[in-house]
Amino acid sequence: MLTKTLQELADYLGGVVRGDGLLKVNGLAPLEGAGPDKITFLANPKYASKVADTKAGCVLMVPGGESYGRNVIEIANPYLGFAKLLTLFYTNPHPALGVMPEAVIGTGVTLGEGISIYPGAVIGNNVTIGNRVVIHPGVVIYEGVTIGDDSVIHANAVIRERCRLGKRCKLQPGAVIGSDGFGFAPDGTAYYPIPQIGIVVLEDDVEIGANTTVDRAALEMTLIKRGTKLDNLVQIAHNCQIGEDCMIVSQVGIAGSSRIGNRVTLAGQVGVVGHVTIGDNVVVGAQSGIPGSLAANGYYSGSPVMQHKEWLRVMGNLPRLPEMRKKISELEKKLAEFEALLAKE
Amino acid sequence: MLTKTLQELADYLGGVVRGDGLLKVNGLAPLEGAGPDKITFLANPKYASKVADTKAGCVLMVPGGESYGRNVIEIANPYLGFAKLLTLFYTNPHPALGVMPEAVIGTGVTLGEGISIYPGAVIGNNVTIGNRVVIHPGVVIYEGVTIGDDSVIHANAVIRERCRLGKRCKLQPGAVIGSDGFGFAPDGTAYYPIPQIGIVVLEDDVEIGANTTVDRAALEMTLIKRGTKLDNLVQIAHNCQIGEDCMIVSQVGIAGSSRIGNRVTLAGQVGVVGHVTIGDNVVVGAQSGIPGSLAANGYYSGSPVMQHKEWLRVMGNLPRLPEMRKKISELEKKLAEFEALLAKE
Amino acid sequence: MLTKTLQELADYLGGVVRGDGLLKVNGLAPLEGAGPDKITFLANPKYASKVADTKAGCVLMVPGGESYGRNVIEIANPYLGFAKLLTLFYTNPHPALGVMPEAVIGTGVTLGEGISIYPGAVIGNNVTIGNRVVIHPGVVIYEGVTIGDDSVIHANAVIRERCRLGKRCKLQPGAVIGSDGFGFAPDGTAYYPIPQIGIVVLEDDVEIGANTTVDRAALEMTLIKRGTKLDNLVQIAHNCQIGEDCMIVSQVGIAGSSRIGNRVTLAGQVGVVGHVTIGDNVVVGAQSGIPGSLAANGYYSGSPVMQHKEWLRVMGNLPRLPEMRKKISELEKKLAEFEALLAKE
Repeated sequence: MLTKTLQELADYLGGVVRGDGLLKVNGLAPLEGAGPDKITFLANPKYASKVADTKAGCVLMVPGGESYGRNVIEIANPYLGFAKLLTLFYTNPHPALGVMPEAVIGTGVTLGEGISIYPGAVIGNNVTIGNRVVIHPGVVIYEGVTIGDDSVIHANAVIRERCRLGKRCKLQPGAVIGSDGFGFAPDGTAYYPIPQIGIVVLEDDVEIGANTTVDRAALEMTLIKRGTKLDNLVQIAHNCQIGEDCMIVSQVGIAGSSRIGNRVTLAGQVGVVGHVTIGDNVVVGAQSGIPGSLAANGYYSGSPVMQHKEWLRVMGNLPRLPEMRKKISELEKKLAEFEALLAKE
Repeated sequence: MLTKTLQELADYLGGVVRGDGLLKVNGLAPLEGAGPDKITFLANPKYASKVADTKAGCVLMVPGGESYGRNVIEIANPYLGFAKLLTLFYTNPHPALGVMPEAVIGTGVTLGEGISIYPGAVIGNNVTIGNRVVIHPGVVIYEGVTIGDDSVIHANAVIRERCRLGKRCKLQPGAVIGSDGFGFAPDGTAYYPIPQIGIVVLEDDVEIGANTTVDRAALEMTLIKRGTKLDNLVQIAHNCQIGEDCMIVSQVGIAGSSRIGNRVTLAGQVGVVGHVTIGDNVVVGAQSGIPGSLAANGYYSGSPVMQHKEWLRVMGNLPRLPEMRKKISELEKKLAEFEALLAKE
Repeated sequence: MLTKTLQELADYLGGVVRGDGLLKVNGLAPLEGAGPDKITFLANPKYASKVADTKAGCVLMVPGGESYGRNVIEIANPYLGFAKLLTLFYTNPHPALGVMPEAVIGTGVTLGEGISIYPGAVIGNNVTIGNRVVIHPGVVIYEGVTIGDDSVIHANAVIRERCRLGKRCKLQPGAVIGSDGFGFAPDGTAYYPIPQIGIVVLEDDVEIGANTTVDRAALEMTLIKRGTKLDNLVQIAHNCQIGEDCMIVSQVGIAGSSRIGNRVTLAGQVGVVGHVTIGDNVVVGAQSGIPGSLAANGYYSGSPVMQHKEWLRVMGNLPRLPEMRKKISELEKKLAEFEALLAKE
């Protein structure tokens, strides 16, 4: 079990100790339930009063926070600090296991140093695998694929021919990269399949959720840029381009040839039609439907989407619809009575 | 082919024969199309008159139903009886095939009695597998997993490290248990992945649909309780807790840390945001969006959800919206005319 | 690299050359970016003016289109011609690799001629595989399955027991055919699983997207007819019947026992409830919810669906809802003032 002093942790995180820098802790725990050998964190000011009651040996908090006499490491972003300490305490560097006996390796394969290729993985011909890459059991990599250093491919994921992954990419189990785009030309009586001869490119630090699918382009490439994270069961159609540092939440579907800017967040179950552009920094609420392009920096909701604030007002009024219709009928009736009355006069 | 007398079947089901208890049948068939060597069932009173025309040797029906002179087994729940007879006539106990040659078994693995592990399955180190468990080809089980007695894991499903399955669990093909939760801490310029060090626990009698994904918890456990059934392509995010005997229909997505009560039904494509609570016995209509907690025993629909009856009224009025707007304009115009008229007088 | 004269390509496509029929090209490229050794196409009249600027050696276009002095092949359906030339130039017949050493083949398996079965594929007992079928690594085929000639099963797809695939079927990676239908009979305290003893039948030329799931029928068959294409992450529940030449776009879910006609298009994320019928040639817009049967030849949108034109009008008015409610209040107030005024008179 790893043990660190608070001072060592503060140095590691770029933070400042208030209290006993020599105290040792050996792991992390929630505010409630943490013992004196654990470090905890306060990210949400809503829970600030819980610091008074925690038994934790130390609390990560923003500079100037109320310590209630606890040992504290002050750090600008306690949530990020928590994530970094989790990594420090609980993740081990993957031992290099090499190519295990029951793995199947094609011809012309280039293998980096420090790799692990598990039993049941099948690597096609002319694949290039970077240093320290881990390929779990049942993964299938078609010919000509390139995988950058330090990438991890979990069990039963599939990467089809010629696709390219950057460094530190992670695929969760069952993810599919490079399936054929959904392209068919009607010939008058049936559908003729259009060969999808392009590829998928994932830049560095891209993560792909479990059973998520990213289709290969018809001609050129489906591109997911640096740092973007896709949750589980997401669908990215052919020829899409997703910018840097986007968060694409579970069950989102993006139709063909759409372009998503940088730092875009699409919440769960959002649908985006094909051939549209979404600007940088856009946030879209869950289950929204996006039928056209969206300007940068907006917050949108609804199907079809509108400005989020407008959507809140509309949805707030929606339950009144039956009452509104009744009132209109009453108004019409009264007006008709007035008209009759005025006509009589 | 299994053959049983009606009396034997009545005894098996806890029902009562009206008619020829010695008649033998060898299987089940629908009301229409069943021959005299088959048993059929009447669950929906709407089809009661079809009993008159069936050629079936026997009809399962509720006590006191009109038999039209057919042999009948009276039973309180004919649909359940039908399910039990299907199991009796058509499902065979899986023969224990042991560990087949092309399966890969890690070190420190505990194997129960009467198991079958098919070729191409890969079992990690320190896995515990109960009695009579069946593991189909291509299944990947990471280290430290526990699987209870009589569970069935279909082809290419994946169970990641340290997750625990109860007894009689069933995973359909491609299901993923224990993928990393979708957790990232923004560091100002990019997203820092938060290690997901928790697990997934499936209690007894839980079934997981094809290509459904259940993410591991960040710290503790994602929990699915006894008897709950998940359909295909469902997403359960990290730290969720799903109660007992729930029915989660296809393509539902439940965001992180939400808690679902017992006997809840979520119809297809429902979305639930994170950190909410849904009470016991709640039913939610298809495609609904749940932005907050829901009280027990309700029936809800819509996105965002409202009471189902209210939603029916609102949706019934929605198509009138253009007409309503026109009427409001007309009312405004008429009132303006009155005002003008009154001003003149 | 394949090289063809324009006349050869025109003959192949059944088109007519205007210009230099002896010119040779060696591939396809988009209007912008094509060099003189490439052929391009104009399918959308919106881009007709780009023909003036293309450097392509030839443009596929409809008869009588403005050529701007370029070499042209006239053809009724340029998009289809483009698809056929892509196939001609860029797809190679898959070499017959036979049963590779690390594939696992059960007993009683019938193998056609010219097949390829890759390492890590597992074929159950009594499976029948047609001529020129390609089975990629990690595919699992349960016992008694039949696969027609020229079908392609991509990596880690699963076909469960006794299902039948026609000729020229294609399964993308991770597709699941024949998972158990989601059928449970409540027994008063819990859910009793109803054995799903039926199968799935895919007719000729059916394509199934990555990680799409098609459940086996309870008793008889889930049927997908000739030429129908399913995109990624689609859910087809048990006992459904999908007609010929349908396009079922990504993340659509169709509940049990529903029947879809021929040439139906369901756009992305559409949901269809169980036990309904959708007529031939119906088109349904993205994210729509279909709670009942739909007549043939219609275009529908919304959740719940209405005629597409009506839906456009309704959605156009929806953002006015808060304003409408305000106006109704004002009208009521004014009318009350009139009433007071009239009462006084």
